[in-house]
Amino acid sequence: VSVECNACAGRWPARALWIADRDATQAYLHEDQFFPGWTVVVLRRHVTELYGLAAAERALVMDEVSDTAAALARAFGAVKMNYALLGNVLPHMHWHLIPRRADDPAPLLPVWGVAHAPREPGDAERAELIARIRAALAAG
Amino acid sequence: VSVECNACAGRWPARALWIADRDATQAYLHEDQFFPGWTVVVLRRHVTELYGLAAAERALVMDEVSDTAAALARAFGAVKMNYALLGNVLPHMHWHLIPRRADDPAPLLPVWGVAHAPREPGDAERAELIARIRAALAAG
Repeated sequence: VSVECNACAGRWPARALWIADRDATQAYLHEDQFFPGWTVVVLRRHVTELYGLAAAERALVMDEVSDTAAALARAFGAVKMNYALLGNVLPHMHWHLIPRRADDPAPLLPVWGVAHAPREPGDAERAELIARIRAALAAG
Repeated sequence: VSVECNACAGRWPARALWIADRDATQAYLHEDQFFPGWTVVVLRRHVTELYGLAAAERALVMDEVSDTAAALARAFGAVKMNYALLGNVLPHMHWHLIPRRADDPAPLLPVWGVAHAPREPGDAERAELIARIRAALAAG
Protein backbone atom coordinates (compact mmCIF):
# COMPACT_ATOMS: atom_id res chain seq x y z
CA VAL A 1 0.00 0.00 0.00
CA SER A 2 1.29 3.44 -0.93
CA VAL A 3 -0.21 6.26 1.18
CA GLU A 4 0.00 8.75 -1.68
CA CYS A 5 -1.68 6.42 -4.19
CA ASN A 6 -5.28 7.18 -5.21
CA ALA A 7 -5.90 3.51 -6.00
CA CYS A 8 -4.62 2.30 -2.60
CA ALA A 9 -6.65 5.03 -0.85
CA GLY A 10 -9.86 3.92 -2.62
CA ARG A 11 -10.23 7.26 -4.43
CA TRP A 12 -9.92 5.64 -7.87
CA PRO A 13 -11.71 4.05 -9.70
CA ALA A 14 -15.14 5.28 -8.56
CA ARG A 15 -17.08 2.55 -6.77
CA ALA A 16 -20.05 3.12 -9.12
CA LEU A 17 -17.89 1.65 -11.91
CA TRP A 18 -17.06 -1.60 -10.09
CA ILE A 19 -17.69 -4.78 -12.09
CA ALA A 20 -16.06 -7.73 -10.32
CA ASP A 21 -13.42 -8.92 -7.87
CA ARG A 22 -10.84 -11.57 -8.72
CA ASP A 23 -8.01 -13.06 -6.62
CA ALA A 24 -5.34 -10.57 -7.68
CA THR A 25 -7.34 -7.86 -9.45
CA GLN A 26 -10.61 -5.91 -9.57
CA ALA A 27 -12.40 -4.93 -12.78
CA TYR A 28 -14.02 -1.52 -13.29
CA LEU A 29 -15.78 0.10 -16.22
CA HIS A 30 -13.62 2.91 -17.68
CA GLU A 31 -15.12 6.37 -17.13
CA ASP A 32 -15.04 7.15 -20.86
CA GLN A 33 -17.22 4.74 -22.86
CA PHE A 34 -16.61 6.33 -26.28
CA PHE A 35 -15.17 2.86 -27.09
CA PRO A 36 -17.94 0.63 -25.64
CA GLY A 37 -16.79 -1.93 -23.10
CA TRP A 38 -13.46 -0.25 -22.21
CA THR A 39 -12.61 -1.86 -18.88
CA VAL A 40 -9.81 -1.31 -16.38
CA VAL A 41 -8.33 -4.25 -14.43
CA VAL A 42 -6.67 -2.91 -11.26
CA LEU A 43 -4.15 -4.84 -9.16
CA ARG A 44 -5.28 -5.23 -5.53
CA ARG A 45 -1.82 -4.49 -4.17
CA HIS A 46 0.52 -1.64 -5.01
CA VAL A 47 2.94 -2.69 -7.73
CA THR A 48 3.94 -0.47 -10.64
CA GLU A 49 5.85 -2.61 -13.14
CA LEU A 50 5.45 -6.15 -14.51
CA TYR A 51 8.94 -6.94 -13.19
CA GLY A 52 7.85 -5.88 -9.70
CA LEU A 53 5.75 -9.06 -9.57
CA ALA A 54 7.18 -12.51 -8.80
CA ALA A 55 6.62 -14.96 -11.67
CA ALA A 56 3.70 -16.81 -10.04
CA GLU A 57 1.82 -13.61 -9.20
CA ARG A 58 2.52 -12.22 -12.68
CA ALA A 59 1.04 -15.37 -14.20
CA LEU A 60 -2.08 -15.04 -12.01
CA VAL A 61 -2.53 -11.37 -12.93
CA MET A 62 -2.14 -12.14 -16.63
CA ASP A 63 -4.64 -15.03 -16.37
CA GLU A 64 -7.18 -12.60 -14.91
CA VAL A 65 -6.39 -9.99 -17.58
CA SER A 66 -6.76 -12.67 -20.25
CA ASP A 67 -10.07 -14.04 -18.92
CA THR A 68 -11.49 -10.53 -18.65
CA ALA A 69 -10.38 -9.71 -22.19
CA ALA A 70 -12.02 -12.89 -23.53
CA ALA A 71 -15.30 -11.97 -21.80
CA LEU A 72 -15.17 -8.41 -23.20
CA ALA A 73 -14.45 -9.67 -26.72
CA ARG A 74 -17.55 -11.90 -26.59
CA ALA A 75 -19.77 -9.29 -24.94
CA PHE A 76 -18.92 -6.48 -27.37
CA GLY A 77 -18.18 -8.35 -30.60
CA ALA A 78 -14.54 -7.27 -30.76
CA VAL A 79 -12.53 -8.01 -33.89
CA LYS A 80 -9.39 -7.33 -31.81
CA MET A 81 -8.72 -6.65 -28.14
CA ASN A 82 -6.28 -3.94 -27.09
CA TYR A 83 -4.34 -4.34 -23.81
CA ALA A 84 -2.25 -1.58 -22.24
CA LEU A 85 -0.35 -1.16 -19.01
CA LEU A 86 0.74 2.50 -18.96
CA GLY A 87 0.54 4.15 -15.52
CA ASN A 88 2.05 7.47 -16.58
CA VAL A 89 -0.44 9.39 -14.42
CA LEU A 90 -1.28 6.74 -11.78
CA PRO A 91 1.54 4.16 -11.59
CA HIS A 92 -0.46 1.63 -9.48
CA MET A 93 -0.77 -1.26 -11.95
CA HIS A 94 -3.97 -1.13 -13.99
CA TRP A 95 -4.60 -2.71 -17.38
CA HIS A 96 -6.72 -0.98 -20.01
CA LEU A 97 -8.73 -3.59 -21.94
CA ILE A 98 -10.48 -2.15 -24.98
CA PRO A 99 -12.72 -4.11 -27.35
CA ARG A 100 -12.12 -2.86 -30.91
CA ARG A 101 -15.14 -3.34 -33.14
CA ALA A 102 -15.70 -3.42 -36.87
CA ASP A 103 -17.81 -0.24 -36.53
CA ASP A 104 -15.04 1.51 -34.61
CA PRO A 105 -14.41 5.11 -35.80
CA ALA A 106 -10.71 4.31 -36.43
CA PRO A 107 -10.13 0.55 -36.23
CA LEU A 108 -6.44 0.72 -37.20
CA LEU A 109 -5.43 3.37 -34.63
CA PRO A 110 -4.62 3.06 -30.95
CA VAL A 111 -7.53 4.62 -29.02
CA TRP A 112 -5.21 7.34 -27.69
CA GLY A 113 -4.73 8.56 -31.25
CA VAL A 114 -8.49 9.03 -31.77
CA ALA A 115 -9.47 12.57 -30.70
CA HIS A 116 -12.95 12.56 -29.14
CA ALA A 117 -14.97 14.07 -26.33
CA PRO A 118 -15.13 11.57 -23.42
CA ARG A 119 -18.54 9.89 -23.21
CA GLU A 120 -19.70 9.16 -19.65
CA PRO A 121 -22.71 6.84 -19.71
CA GLY A 122 -25.79 7.74 -17.66
CA ASP A 123 -26.94 5.54 -14.76
CA ALA A 124 -29.10 3.18 -16.82
CA GLU A 125 -26.52 2.65 -19.56
CA ARG A 126 -23.74 2.19 -17.01
CA ALA A 127 -25.80 -0.47 -15.20
CA GLU A 128 -26.51 -2.24 -18.50
CA LEU A 129 -22.82 -2.27 -19.49
CA ILE A 130 -21.73 -3.60 -16.09
CA ALA A 131 -24.44 -6.28 -16.15
CA ARG A 132 -23.40 -7.32 -19.66
CA ILE A 133 -19.74 -7.69 -18.64
CA ARG A 134 -20.64 -9.60 -15.45
CA ALA A 135 -22.75 -12.01 -17.49
CA ALA A 136 -19.89 -12.58 -19.94
CA LEU A 137 -17.44 -13.16 -17.06
CA ALA A 138 -19.84 -15.65 -15.46
CA ALA A 139 -20.29 -17.48 -18.78
CA GLY A 140 -16.47 -17.68 -19.25
CA VAL B 1 1.80 -19.84 -39.08
CA SER B 2 -0.60 -17.68 -41.05
CA VAL B 3 0.27 -17.41 -44.75
CA GLU B 4 -1.13 -13.90 -45.01
CA CYS B 5 0.77 -12.63 -41.96
CA ASN B 6 3.75 -10.33 -42.54
CA ALA B 7 5.33 -11.45 -39.26
CA CYS B 8 5.03 -15.16 -40.10
CA ALA B 9 6.38 -14.49 -43.62
CA GLY B 10 9.44 -12.71 -42.21
CA ARG B 11 8.50 -9.39 -43.85
CA TRP B 12 8.17 -7.62 -40.47
CA PRO B 13 10.04 -6.48 -38.41
CA ALA B 14 13.06 -5.68 -40.61
CA ARG B 15 16.01 -7.96 -39.81
CA ALA B 16 18.25 -4.89 -39.34
CA LEU B 17 16.24 -4.11 -36.18
CA TRP B 18 16.75 -7.54 -34.56
CA ILE B 19 17.98 -7.45 -30.95
CA ALA B 20 17.62 -10.90 -29.40
CA ASP B 21 15.90 -14.28 -29.49
CA ARG B 22 14.14 -15.80 -26.48
CA ASP B 23 12.27 -19.11 -26.11
CA ALA B 24 8.82 -17.75 -27.03
CA THR B 25 9.60 -14.31 -28.45
CA GLN B 26 12.06 -12.19 -30.43
CA ALA B 27 12.93 -8.58 -29.59
CA TYR B 28 13.35 -5.89 -32.25
CA LEU B 29 14.03 -2.17 -32.09
CA HIS B 30 10.92 -0.18 -33.09
CA GLU B 31 11.35 1.67 -36.41
CA ASP B 32 10.46 5.02 -34.79
CA GLN B 33 12.93 5.98 -32.05
CA PHE B 34 11.34 9.35 -31.19
CA PHE B 35 10.91 7.71 -27.75
CA PRO B 36 14.41 6.22 -27.27
CA GLY B 37 14.53 2.51 -26.56
CA TRP B 38 11.03 1.68 -27.90
CA THR B 39 11.24 -2.06 -28.47
CA VAL B 40 8.83 -4.61 -29.93
CA VAL B 41 8.65 -8.16 -28.52
CA VAL B 42 7.18 -10.45 -31.19
CA LEU B 43 5.76 -13.92 -30.50
CA ARG B 44 7.51 -16.64 -32.51
CA ARG B 45 4.24 -18.38 -33.36
CA HIS B 46 1.03 -16.92 -34.75
CA VAL B 47 -1.36 -16.08 -31.92
CA THR B 48 -3.43 -12.91 -31.82
CA GLU B 49 -4.97 -12.64 -28.34
CA LEU B 50 -3.72 -13.30 -24.78
CA TYR B 51 -6.55 -15.82 -24.39
CA GLY B 52 -5.31 -17.69 -27.46
CA LEU B 53 -2.34 -18.85 -25.36
CA ALA B 54 -2.51 -21.71 -22.85
CA ALA B 55 -1.69 -20.57 -19.31
CA ALA B 56 1.87 -21.96 -19.25
CA GLU B 57 2.80 -20.36 -22.58
CA ARG B 58 1.16 -17.07 -21.54
CA ALA B 59 3.28 -17.08 -18.37
CA LEU B 60 6.45 -17.69 -20.42
CA VAL B 61 5.60 -14.89 -22.86
CA MET B 62 4.89 -12.49 -20.00
CA ASP B 63 8.16 -13.46 -18.25
CA GLU B 64 10.03 -12.56 -21.44
CA VAL B 65 8.07 -9.30 -21.82
CA SER B 66 8.81 -8.50 -18.17
CA ASP B 67 12.55 -9.26 -18.40
CA THR B 68 12.86 -7.18 -21.56
CA ALA B 69 11.00 -4.28 -19.94
CA ALA B 70 13.31 -4.42 -16.90
CA ALA B 71 16.37 -4.29 -19.15
CA LEU B 72 14.96 -1.34 -21.13
CA ALA B 73 14.10 0.56 -17.93
CA ARG B 74 17.72 0.21 -16.74
CA ALA B 75 19.26 0.96 -20.12
CA PHE B 76 17.22 4.11 -20.78
CA GLY B 77 16.60 5.46 -17.27
CA ALA B 78 12.83 5.05 -17.46
CA VAL B 79 10.66 6.52 -14.70
CA LYS B 80 7.84 4.27 -15.99
CA MET B 81 7.59 1.53 -18.59
CA ASN B 82 4.63 1.39 -20.97
CA TYR B 83 3.45 -2.00 -22.29
CA ALA B 84 0.89 -2.41 -25.06
CA LEU B 85 -0.50 -5.32 -27.00
CA LEU B 86 -2.64 -3.77 -29.75
CA GLY B 87 -2.41 -5.54 -33.13
CA ASN B 88 -5.01 -3.41 -34.91
CA VAL B 89 -2.92 -3.34 -38.08
CA LEU B 90 -0.91 -6.57 -37.66
CA PRO B 91 -2.73 -8.96 -35.31
CA HIS B 92 0.25 -11.36 -34.87
CA MET B 93 1.04 -10.86 -31.15
CA HIS B 94 3.68 -8.19 -30.55
CA TRP B 95 4.22 -6.15 -27.42
CA HIS B 96 5.27 -2.50 -27.57
CA LEU B 97 7.64 -1.75 -24.68
CA ILE B 98 8.35 1.95 -24.29
CA PRO B 99 10.69 3.47 -21.69
CA ARG B 100 9.19 6.75 -20.48
CA ARG B 101 11.82 9.19 -19.24
CA ALA B 102 11.79 12.27 -17.08
CA ASP B 103 12.85 14.34 -20.12
CA ASP B 104 10.01 12.89 -22.22
CA PRO B 105 8.14 15.56 -24.27
CA ALA B 106 4.80 14.51 -22.68
CA PRO B 107 5.43 12.17 -19.73
CA LEU B 108 1.76 11.91 -18.72
CA LEU B 109 0.41 10.99 -22.17
CA PRO B 110 0.33 7.66 -23.97
CA VAL B 111 2.90 7.84 -26.79
CA TRP B 112 0.09 7.52 -29.36
CA GLY B 113 -1.30 10.85 -28.15
CA VAL B 114 2.02 12.65 -28.81
CA ALA B 115 2.05 13.96 -32.39
CA HIS B 116 5.55 13.79 -33.85
CA ALA B 117 7.43 12.99 -37.03
CA PRO B 118 8.79 9.40 -36.80
CA ARG B 119 12.53 9.40 -36.14
CA GLU B 120 14.43 6.55 -37.85
CA PRO B 121 17.95 6.28 -36.45
CA GLY B 122 20.89 6.07 -38.86
CA ASP B 123 23.09 2.96 -39.00
CA ALA B 124 25.53 3.99 -36.26
CA GLU B 125 22.83 5.09 -33.82
CA ARG B 126 20.77 1.98 -34.52
CA ALA B 127 23.79 -0.23 -33.81
CA GLU B 128 24.47 1.67 -30.57
CA LEU B 129 20.85 1.31 -29.39
CA ILE B 130 20.77 -2.41 -30.17
CA ALA B 131 24.13 -2.97 -28.43
CA ARG B 132 22.91 -1.05 -25.37
CA ILE B 133 19.75 -3.19 -25.12
CA ARG B 134 21.67 -6.45 -25.62
CA ALA B 135 24.09 -5.48 -22.84
CA ALA B 136 21.17 -4.71 -20.50
CA LEU B 137 19.50 -8.03 -21.35
CA ALA B 138 22.77 -9.89 -20.69
CA ALA B 139 23.22 -8.10 -17.34
CA GLY B 140 19.61 -8.99 -16.33
